[in-house]
Amino acid sequence: MTTPPDAATIDAGLLSPVRAGTPIEAAVSDTAWLQAMLDAEAALARAQSRIGTVPAWAAEAITGAARAGRFDLRALAVAARESANPVVGLVAALTRAVHPDAAEYVHRGSTSQDILDTGAMLVGRRALEIIRADLATMAEGLHHLARTHRDTLMAARTLALHAVPTTFGLKVAGWRELVLDAHRRIGRVLHDGLPVALGGAAGTLAGYLEYAGDGRAGDRGGYVDELVDAFAGETGLARPALPWHVRRTPVADLAGVLAFTAGALGKIAVDVLLLTRTETGELAERAAPGRGSSSAMPQKRNPVHATLVRSAALQVPVIAAGLTQCLVSEDERSAGAWHAEWQLLRECLRLTGGATRTAVELTEGLEVRPDRMLHNLGLTGGQVVSERVAAVLAARLGRRAAKELVAEAAATASSTGRPLHEVLAAAPELAGRFSAGELESLGDPAAYVGAAGALVDRVTRAESDVNG
Amino acid sequence: MTTPPDAATIDAGLLSPVRAGTPIEAAVSDTAWLQAMLDAEAALARAQSRIGTVPAWAAEAITGAARAGRFDLRALAVAARESANPVVGLVAALTRAVHPDAAEYVHRGSTSQDILDTGAMLVGRRALEIIRADLATMAEGLHHLARTHRDTLMAARTLALHAVPTTFGLKVAGWRELVLDAHRRIGRVLHDGLPVALGGAAGTLAGYLEYAGDGRAGDRGGYVDELVDAFAGETGLARPALPWHVRRTPVADLAGVLAFTAGALGKIAVDVLLLTRTETGELAERAAPGRGSSSAMPQKRNPVHATLVRSAALQVPVIAAGLTQCLVSEDERSAGAWHAEWQLLRECLRLTGGATRTAVELTEGLEVRPDRMLHNLGLTGGQVVSERVAAVLAARLGRRAAKELVAEAAATASSTGRPLHEVLAAAPELAGRFSAGELESLGDPAAYVGAAGALVDRVTRAESDVNG
Amino acid sequence: MTTPPDAATIDAGLLSPVRAGTPIEAAVSDTAWLQAMLDAEAALARAQSRIGTVPAWAAEAITGAARAGRFDLRALAVAARESANPVVGLVAALTRAVHPDAAEYVHRGSTSQDILDTGAMLVGRRALEIIRADLATMAEGLHHLARTHRDTLMAARTLALHAVPTTFGLKVAGWRELVLDAHRRIGRVLHDGLPVALGGAAGTLAGYLEYAGDGRAGDRGGYVDELVDAFAGETGLARPALPWHVRRTPVADLAGVLAFTAGALGKIAVDVLLLTRTETGELAERAAPGRGSSSAMPQKRNPVHATLVRSAALQVPVIAAGLTQCLVSEDERSAGAWHAEWQLLRECLRLTGGATRTAVELTEGLEVRPDRMLHNLGLTGGQVVSERVAAVLAARLGRRAAKELVAEAAATASSTGRPLHEVLAAAPELAGRFSAGELESLGDPAAYVGAAGALVDRVTRAESDVNG
Amino acid sequence: MTTPPDAATIDAGLLSPVRAGTPIEAAVSDTAWLQAMLDAEAALARAQSRIGTVPAWAAEAITGAARAGRFDLRALAVAARESANPVVGLVAALTRAVHPDAAEYVHRGSTSQDILDTGAMLVGRRALEIIRADLATMAEGLHHLARTHRDTLMAARTLALHAVPTTFGLKVAGWRELVLDAHRRIGRVLHDGLPVALGGAAGTLAGYLEYAGDGRAGDRGGYVDELVDAFAGETGLARPALPWHVRRTPVADLAGVLAFTAGALGKIAVDVLLLTRTETGELAERAAPGRGSSSAMPQKRNPVHATLVRSAALQVPVIAAGLTQCLVSEDERSAGAWHAEWQLLRECLRLTGGATRTAVELTEGLEVRPDRMLHNLGLTGGQVVSERVAAVLAARLGRRAAKELVAEAAATASSTGRPLHEVLAAAPELAGRFSAGELESLGDPAAYVGAAGALVDRVTRAESDVNG
Repeated sequence: MTTPPDAATIDAGLLSPVRAGTPIEAAVSDTAWLQAMLDAEAALARAQSRIGTVPAWAAEAITGAARAGRFDLRALAVAARESANPVVGLVAALTRAVHPDAAEYVHRGSTSQDILDTGAMLVGRRALEIIRADLATMAEGLHHLARTHRDTLMAARTLALHAVPTTFGLKVAGWRELVLDAHRRIGRVLHDGLPVALGGAAGTLAGYLEYAGDGRAGDRGGYVDELVDAFAGETGLARPALPWHVRRTPVADLAGVLAFTAGALGKIAVDVLLLTRTETGELAERAAPGRGSSSAMPQKRNPVHATLVRSAALQVPVIAAGLTQCLVSEDERSAGAWHAEWQLLRECLRLTGGATRTAVELTEGLEVRPDRMLHNLGLTGGQVVSERVAAVLAARLGRRAAKELVAEAAATASSTGRPLHEVLAAAPELAGRFSAGELESLGDPAAYVGAAGALVDRVTRAESDVNG
Repeated sequence: MTTPPDAATIDAGLLSPVRAGTPIEAAVSDTAWLQAMLDAEAALARAQSRIGTVPAWAAEAITGAARAGRFDLRALAVAARESANPVVGLVAALTRAVHPDAAEYVHRGSTSQDILDTGAMLVGRRALEIIRADLATMAEGLHHLARTHRDTLMAARTLALHAVPTTFGLKVAGWRELVLDAHRRIGRVLHDGLPVALGGAAGTLAGYLEYAGDGRAGDRGGYVDELVDAFAGETGLARPALPWHVRRTPVADLAGVLAFTAGALGKIAVDVLLLTRTETGELAERAAPGRGSSSAMPQKRNPVHATLVRSAALQVPVIAAGLTQCLVSEDERSAGAWHAEWQLLRECLRLTGGATRTAVELTEGLEVRPDRMLHNLGLTGGQVVSERVAAVLAARLGRRAAKELVAEAAATASSTGRPLHEVLAAAPELAGRFSAGELESLGDPAAYVGAAGALVDRVTRAESDVNG
Repeated sequence: MTTPPDAATIDAGLLSPVRAGTPIEAAVSDTAWLQAMLDAEAALARAQSRIGTVPAWAAEAITGAARAGRFDLRALAVAARESANPVVGLVAALTRAVHPDAAEYVHRGSTSQDILDTGAMLVGRRALEIIRADLATMAEGLHHLARTHRDTLMAARTLALHAVPTTFGLKVAGWRELVLDAHRRIGRVLHDGLPVALGGAAGTLAGYLEYAGDGRAGDRGGYVDELVDAFAGETGLARPALPWHVRRTPVADLAGVLAFTAGALGKIAVDVLLLTRTETGELAERAAPGRGSSSAMPQKRNPVHATLVRSAALQVPVIAAGLTQCLVSEDERSAGAWHAEWQLLRECLRLTGGATRTAVELTEGLEVRPDRMLHNLGLTGGQVVSERVAAVLAARLGRRAAKELVAEAAATASSTGRPLHEVLAAAPELAGRFSAGELESLGDPAAYVGAAGALVDRVTRAESDVNG
Repeated sequence: MTTPPDAATIDAGLLSPVRAGTPIEAAVSDTAWLQAMLDAEAALARAQSRIGTVPAWAAEAITGAARAGRFDLRALAVAARESANPVVGLVAALTRAVHPDAAEYVHRGSTSQDILDTGAMLVGRRALEIIRADLATMAEGLHHLARTHRDTLMAARTLALHAVPTTFGLKVAGWRELVLDAHRRIGRVLHDGLPVALGGAAGTLAGYLEYAGDGRAGDRGGYVDELVDAFAGETGLARPALPWHVRRTPVADLAGVLAFTAGALGKIAVDVLLLTRTETGELAERAAPGRGSSSAMPQKRNPVHATLVRSAALQVPVIAAGLTQCLVSEDERSAGAWHAEWQLLRECLRLTGGATRTAVELTEGLEVRPDRMLHNLGLTGGQVVSERVAAVLAARLGRRAAKELVAEAAATASSTGRPLHEVLAAAPELAGRFSAGELESLGDPAAYVGAAGALVDRVTRAESDVNG
């Protein structure tokens, strides 16, 4: 075994600015995880005490000792190589940390996985709550942004090209809906409840029963129900239908909502990046001293928040797939699949939490430039409404002929730089059917936003959905 | 461009036996997908007819023509390279297939993505229903299996080694719970409803409104609501809050439940494979003429169903991650992310559907060998209950001393092949504290299954949950 | 078991336009795979005949019968569910197809995996050759494009914003280098050689030796060497150091180069998409009748090739990860990991092959618009050279002060729309140090392309590297 | 912005025992990464000094200041959120750390990506060297293990069941070959050389040229060549054909070999786990005080090394897929894809490095139990050689009839527990053709190991390949 490096240097966030210094980082740190496992040990002792199989003073002693700061985190981490998980060492350390009389009651009847999994659920719940609150803040902000820009005209783009007019309000309403989708999915996981893990060595709770003593062994089901209830009560977690050592639904559910959330935020980030491009210039991240600066180019004001959010969206779905695969956990405890989950789960929580916080800053600091939107909308000389022109002409020429005529006119307009309506005004097929004025007014983008306003209204009511 | 190969040869299922010939294969075939897109076109015409903007006879004509068998599937596929999706060619072909008077009303106001996405949801819903029904069948079978083996003793294994005793019933109850988790998650997606796609060129529904005519343009929101309602009604799909061209929640939700389901089934498959191993022999797949035979070894009766289910579990989570990433869809229609979804989604549906059907066959055909389970449980000469022995000794010796004594005795038992209780009977520390008989009875695995029976009872009631 | 659907309908390419109708599709079709497995059976018989353990007439009969068209592909696919692979059924069918006297010699001493893996390598090699040839064509085209545009000025963009000037030639030279990277990596796999699989039931070749008869059994190593040599000779594949049933290096190597190639092409595709955007307009895909048309918008000329290439780049890396994971193949043949490979491998080959062909069409059909590039380069009024301006000023003001001054001037230039040099000309810090003319000439983008031309020259020599 | 947590707590290895405390952890820590970036800055200054565009004293001053311990790692990490990468802050801090006269020469003409990418290559090279050395050690150990057990009989298993006999030596030779495959692939990446990054703001090296002054501007290509050569010389890295800011081949190559290595080690781990299972007991990890102990079960001696190696094999391929996807880097610097790479790359290096070190310990500490192997081989009463029996019978009965007869006899043998040869001796078809003794000797597993010994000999020569 090698000399341990200074633990401080392993990860200070240097390679992951999307989360460095955001609240999620501390919430899922090794210290947080260690504390959560200690909380699980303490809650277990108190639960056993509640139902009378551990003395109250022992449960108190264990609870009092279960403070992360009292333990050598790095030593526990390195020692975990000997048992493949950090709980074996933690139990030994906690046992040493309590009064010898209480030592008998530490981890009584328990198993590493009960502690680690319960700890993971405590960490996961706290992290989801942080993420969910940030999503709510973001949805609220987007609500106002969508209302403000309900009628702000801009070009809709499909396959990289101007398609038809839309409004910035509708685009933002779509972002908000996606944020609400993430919010709802996280809310559902929290509402269903992340469960305590309580199975004993292999899911039968035999160890817990053994220590419960003969007086309780008569009604095993009853005792187990009481114990699970008490443990759930002490931790605030849910009680599962069965021990879930190898039924990794809670972890897969976390992976699912985290991948969804990161992906959803990624969509918003790429939209911002595209609208920020120098030629487009419809959006910008708010200037702040030093923000977005480059080491080389003084003029740069880089869209750093969108960049960081996108960096997380590129990472989380594949990492989450690793977690989903751990559903394939053999036997009553997997040799490897369980152990693969921990860092993957932390990374998904951390990246998604960092991305959510960063996305809040991104959307709160968004500069919107309606003038550029309008300017860009006019770039194609009215071709952006050629769908409409074709529809109107179809009534006179038939649909196919109308579409072909407009396609040809659009090609001419593009190659000559003339407005579409002028090219059409010269088309012999339309002679006597439309005046130049009619054609010009047909080409007004503002008159072809469809139901954009109504759609914004439909989804943005006076009160935000997440607070309703 | 090259000469097209005979389309029949591209994929006949040769490389994917987990689904070859199972119902899901036809349900998600190219023909099924083509029909679903034609169904979407027909439903759109009928919806527009319902609300008065397309004549009834035209909607009927379009519906009549919208039969997959009338179209050249391969030609449509190859032509899709020119427009990056198959709908442009399909609309042209459908337009040619209807009476010229009706041609004006085909795909009226619509866009490729509305048709393809609505078609995908129709295919997805049908596939989920197939999968869900198979999961229900499987849960029912596992319910009976768990009850039958409520008290069938076997060794629980953790990290590859015997841990403590458990029952086969509890193992099966865990499998069933996982199947129910998948069933519930799919049920939730079906209950929330996969939505119609109806956004027009870029999500404003402007084209639909334009063709609706001036009479309806006064109340855009109202018209759009009616149209979406009618389209949802004609397809049986749900109505979305907003067009979802670039809010890919429905696809991500499908990816999520499919990855979960495949992973869940994979857990069952690896358990079966491990218990089938020659040395273990606790389970076997039911013999059938020709099944499980090898091209080389006459004695082989391979666990083919478990093998195929596992092959799907290895594939779906990573493919599904590709779908989740497509949440990052830029602009009002992505250039590439949308196009990446189709085959990935089909593959997830197909593999999961094949795996589910195969898993039904696997669990229905499982041979259980309680005698082998009992035999194996005895292999360690009572070490499988050393957790219990240590607990009992702890009451006299203290926990730490007890655990060390038992660990040492277990090592001696392993190296000498003697039963644990005999080794302990010779331990000076226990002299006068336990009789040899007490130690022997402590070592009875049947007396140390904890709450296994009660846990099975808790989750298996008289009626199966999925039918309740 | 269900009624088989018409096999023709399963996959006609409808959901995967990136490969529909391209040469790779036929090269990796089920028919191609079936033929490759038959080729493996025939080559094995001929190899055994070469070294004298199968009569020549029998090897000829087997070779004559080994034609895919003679077999019921669909029936083989469906039957594969019974044995978890298609070879068991194929061997039975081939045995029936030859003269009874030759039947004894079909698949003699062999095992399913030898045939399927050898077939996969034959398919894989052919597919890699197609892809490699297309990459060479593409590199050649990019070579000329880079030379043509060696000095075509354009803006370099970093983090979505104009950074400094560059040339289109340098951008294309970078694309070409990436294509050559893919070409070299595929060439290396082909040069190292994809190996025959020849291990018999479990990698000892015992079955082959048994059938070889006593005369050969004396020198097992010698016989095995001869047999592997002969089989490699008959198939044109390489000979492996050891049987590789569970040493999946060849498959992982294929996965690696395919993921790399698809990703590399994806980079080119996204660059094209960004430069095609309406506001930017520096590139366009060549117009062709019907190409890039939309079902809704007559003016659209969508970048369909770039879109399709990107769709493949989004799929292949995750699918390839599934293949890499199959390295974890337990025992002497995996129950599931082997079976997961087949469709994943085909999909990687097919998507990458389709993407490469599509990328050839994309780059051959690229319209380049130097005027738009120059126009866009001027959009920021000289800010695009502020790095240079800061460097020049640094010599007089110190670097920090210079950078701050230019940053401030750039902000003013942006908010007022004035050219950077005008803003700077009014800066008191520079009074008397630079004339307005000096500042204006400093702001000339053409004078700040660094070594762009020299870099293009360095990598594009008279003759293309891939033919050199 | 939130209060930064104590950086020490973020990651002390608690959730990743496969690498906690192994040498790779320090080699890829944040401190290591910071030092590597400082090394890049210093090397750049020295390179510029070598070719005369920075004074030697300034390069010395910068080199002297470039020590990680002098900088506030955590502050740099948190500040990186403002510029989306840590280099902007690092340059500012380094500039402050040198004498004001030297400050002008820090990061001269450079850009963040040149420093971060060069730093990443320095870290990556060092990590690969550690991994490669461990792989060589492991291959050496496996070489001896294969030789020692060249003729140790054991059952080969396919699809979870005994197939035919093999030797443990051949199995180990296969493991070693896989380790050598990884070793060769890493060696190739190191031999080709990980490159310095030197492109300036956008790959034209304009900034470097600008600062070089007029005297050098005349021959831009020449200057750039000299600078790249000097930088490569100072860092020991390779010189690339072109700047690779958005040609991410070096990162994709790292991802490829790391995923391969982790997967290869995973195969060995699952084999060990399967052979360690209680019923099988052919292998065990060497006992060490405290190693493999359980928090619950005193008898347990868990295969912790194999478990940890497998945990890495489950993680690396999916994480590496995220890196491969970053090939799709748009423009001259990606907004997000570049930023996604850093932590993914570190995690791949760290997990693979930890897994390799753990695998060395695993294979060095492997207890092999030939007696258990032989015992297990006899479990099926000779069915494990039924392939051979069928081959011998085929010579008399024809292949099909022989296979059917043996299959039937094997079924009878299984159900009755009688040896296969006894069942066959009673078969009327064989009456008078084989004596009972002949049948019994046919059933000797030791006589049916094929070329196992010869294959081991072929790949294990006197000297190990990696030192040859």
